[in-house]
Amino acid sequence: MIRFDFSGVTKELINERGISKEDINALSPIIKEAHDILSSRRERGEILFYDLPYAKDTINQVKDLAGDLSGKFKNIVHLGIGGSSLGPKAIFSALKDPFHNYVSSPRMFFLENIDPEYIASLLDNISAEETLFNVVSKSGATPETASQFMVVFDLLKTRLGKNYKDHLVFITDPKDGVLRRLASAHGIRSLPIPKEVGGRFSVLTPVGLLPAAMCSIDIDKLLDGAAKMADIVTSPDVFKNPAYMYACIHFIAFVKGINISVIMPYSNALYDLADWYRQLWAESLGKKTSLDNKDVFTGQTPVKALGATDQHSQIQLYMEGPFDKIINIITVKHYRKDIKIPAIFNDINELAYLGSKDMSELINAEASSIRAALIKNERPTTQIEIDTINGETIGALFMFFEVSTAFMGYLLKIDPFNQPGVELGKQLTFSLMGRPGFEDKVKMLKDSLKTVEYMHIEI
Amino acid sequence: MIRFDFSGVTKELINERGISKEDINALSPIIKEAHDILSSRRERGEILFYDLPYAKDTINQVKDLAGDLSGKFKNIVHLGIGGSSLGPKAIFSALKDPFHNYVSSPRMFFLENIDPEYIASLLDNISAEETLFNVVSKSGATPETASQFMVVFDLLKTRLGKNYKDHLVFITDPKDGVLRRLASAHGIRSLPIPKEVGGRFSVLTPVGLLPAAMCSIDIDKLLDGAAKMADIVTSPDVFKNPAYMYACIHFIAFVKGINISVIMPYSNALYDLADWYRQLWAESLGKKTSLDNKDVFTGQTPVKALGATDQHSQIQLYMEGPFDKIINIITVKHYRKDIKIPAIFNDINELAYLGSKDMSELINAEASSIRAALIKNERPTTQIEIDTINGETIGALFMFFEVSTAFMGYLLKIDPFNQPGVELGKQLTFSLMGRPGFEDKVKMLKDSLKTVEYMHIEI
Repeated sequence: MIRFDFSGVTKELINERGISKEDINALSPIIKEAHDILSSRRERGEILFYDLPYAKDTINQVKDLAGDLSGKFKNIVHLGIGGSSLGPKAIFSALKDPFHNYVSSPRMFFLENIDPEYIASLLDNISAEETLFNVVSKSGATPETASQFMVVFDLLKTRLGKNYKDHLVFITDPKDGVLRRLASAHGIRSLPIPKEVGGRFSVLTPVGLLPAAMCSIDIDKLLDGAAKMADIVTSPDVFKNPAYMYACIHFIAFVKGINISVIMPYSNALYDLADWYRQLWAESLGKKTSLDNKDVFTGQTPVKALGATDQHSQIQLYMEGPFDKIINIITVKHYRKDIKIPAIFNDINELAYLGSKDMSELINAEASSIRAALIKNERPTTQIEIDTINGETIGALFMFFEVSTAFMGYLLKIDPFNQPGVELGKQLTFSLMGRPGFEDKVKMLKDSLKTVEYMHIEI
Repeated sequence: MIRFDFSGVTKELINERGISKEDINALSPIIKEAHDILSSRRERGEILFYDLPYAKDTINQVKDLAGDLSGKFKNIVHLGIGGSSLGPKAIFSALKDPFHNYVSSPRMFFLENIDPEYIASLLDNISAEETLFNVVSKSGATPETASQFMVVFDLLKTRLGKNYKDHLVFITDPKDGVLRRLASAHGIRSLPIPKEVGGRFSVLTPVGLLPAAMCSIDIDKLLDGAAKMADIVTSPDVFKNPAYMYACIHFIAFVKGINISVIMPYSNALYDLADWYRQLWAESLGKKTSLDNKDVFTGQTPVKALGATDQHSQIQLYMEGPFDKIINIITVKHYRKDIKIPAIFNDINELAYLGSKDMSELINAEASSIRAALIKNERPTTQIEIDTINGETIGALFMFFEVSTAFMGYLLKIDPFNQPGVELGKQLTFSLMGRPGFEDKVKMLKDSLKTVEYMHIEI
């Protein structure tokens, strides 16, 4: 179903820049330590994402609600940002046809940003009568989602009167927060995000499952794939645990100065999964402070690239630039659709060799060639080959990357589950927007934004 | 109407991690050298991109052809990859409504990848009778575009008989290459890409201009903006030339170990422009060999991020991670549409402060807050503020980034206009696809892709 080939990071293939079996064995003590922390936190119920495939009650709630809503709406607009959006978007892109929104319903729109141009256009082009708004925020206070929700709430009340609440669903904290209180006060349908699951690990909670189910995606398959992967990636033996191995390789590379991790699927359908990974890796691992409270300023920068497209954009740099990257290529053995290149232009050298080949053969040849060329240039390269894109493999990949990331966090001796660095930006925003209690931040903001040097360009 | 504020990289704001005026003055000799190379190569006609706004003949050809094609097609499918696609896509996203394809025509599809699933779905969902295929490749031999073209050519001949050629346009080399020969042989309409303009600098040739004109974008405005910027960014004085300053700041940062350059527009419409920049910066600067033929393995990795969305994905890392990034924030003073957040929920603390504000105020407050917080955390940060997104500002940004990149190349003492590192991957692909003359590469490919047993996990 999924094959991990880490050969392209070994000394056997990339020489002195590579990793040896001894390098990995030498990590045994910290591997054991990281495994023990993860296992014991899981046992204590502090880390729940491993066990989401078994949350039967919640899964049934999702199915029931999706069933109730089925067939009633032409559009679903998803209000959420970061971990409240990247997971469901990754599922939608991976498992629905790329032209779904042009020809089928419910059409799915992920709002995410507070770009006024985009939001205004969306609202100009859909009718409230035909639309369900799914509001996803654990606290309900995230300013982006909150402001979108206020716009939508007002619009629905104006257009639909007392029927407004039939066009709203909340996915939020089971007990606390603004959305939970509003759900109770207004009788708005809602589903829970468990307290013990952080935003970026929440794809297999209702956050990812409800939108999937509403688009007729079989969520049992997603959960099955995740459960099967969870069984494998809990092994303490790094040579049998691909998630631990992925983390160890990245850890060794990072310690050697490789501060960039590229994820490069050869599939349009997986590009949003790469974006989901980008949050997971960046927000979990980018930390100032270690578990024992030292300043470490650690974290590897994830970069998403799309094969084969970015061969014509990024590969020059990956082949010849600094030795600062590890490149993780995701390939697909069997694409769900294929195209035969016709046997025409037989007398034209530059084209004839393509004739009679399948497009899938070409894209896979390119992926192999880029892997080989990167390895030849001594660039550490891994391959994750999935048999085909379906619910099971996507579910398995979610679990794989989640465990890899959590494990990498403990190898780095930081907390992969917090995000203290986003606080200051939020507080400054509150101060600028005049939220009571944040007045004292205005001065700090002004000091930081002093103009020292600028160029005004009149054109 | 662009303001470039680089206060956030100065020692005055980010202390010892910052850049001083002396640091920039110390670069005088290499600034002069880089300026002289650029100017003299431009005078000799070797670098043409500066002068594209004045190519009246070609511009008129573009307008004539766009006029001929106007109103005839429901869909335009753009076949091209890398520099043949990123520019036109950036223009389309910046200047057309985000819902254009849902409600207007011609609908615009950028094929780019050879993903068989995506191409098959596209062809299932458009009719050849209503579609123009715009094939963009300088040589015509790019395997991705060539294979797509073969599929489309065969499809058009089968469906439309002798009318097939009315549904094709080629943008290619003025004299040489497969597409040029086919254009002559079949009488297919075509436009030239000048020899002296490389793919990633070609957005203001017919590559970018024809798709724009076909979508009723005023290309004179794009060219005007670019011309006005070109006048400014040819000054030899770095303190009067924002493109040179952008390059110098990045050069000083890179020499100090900052190997990542983030570009982060606070606008959905500019995200594809960030992707265009990503190719420009990566492929121009990622080089193994210096101008005097030494191994340098240089190049800064560009990363695209979207404000405010990626505040909930990447900002934790940017704030607290290693000091390995310079962050370039693009802000928009006046959005083309706006949304008022209604004054509701006045009794709820977490929401009330948002009431009666414009969405544009919120997104701009977030951009300011993130800038301030990054600066507070001593992360080098620049701001490019544009008055509004329109043809002139987009044209100006293209020229700004092109000159910045070319200049940065000469500061690094590499050739920003070649891309030797992509050759090996291409040759290996040819060998795998059985193209005559490339048989000898197969062994190299097999050697590079050896599976090292202890790093191989099947599940």
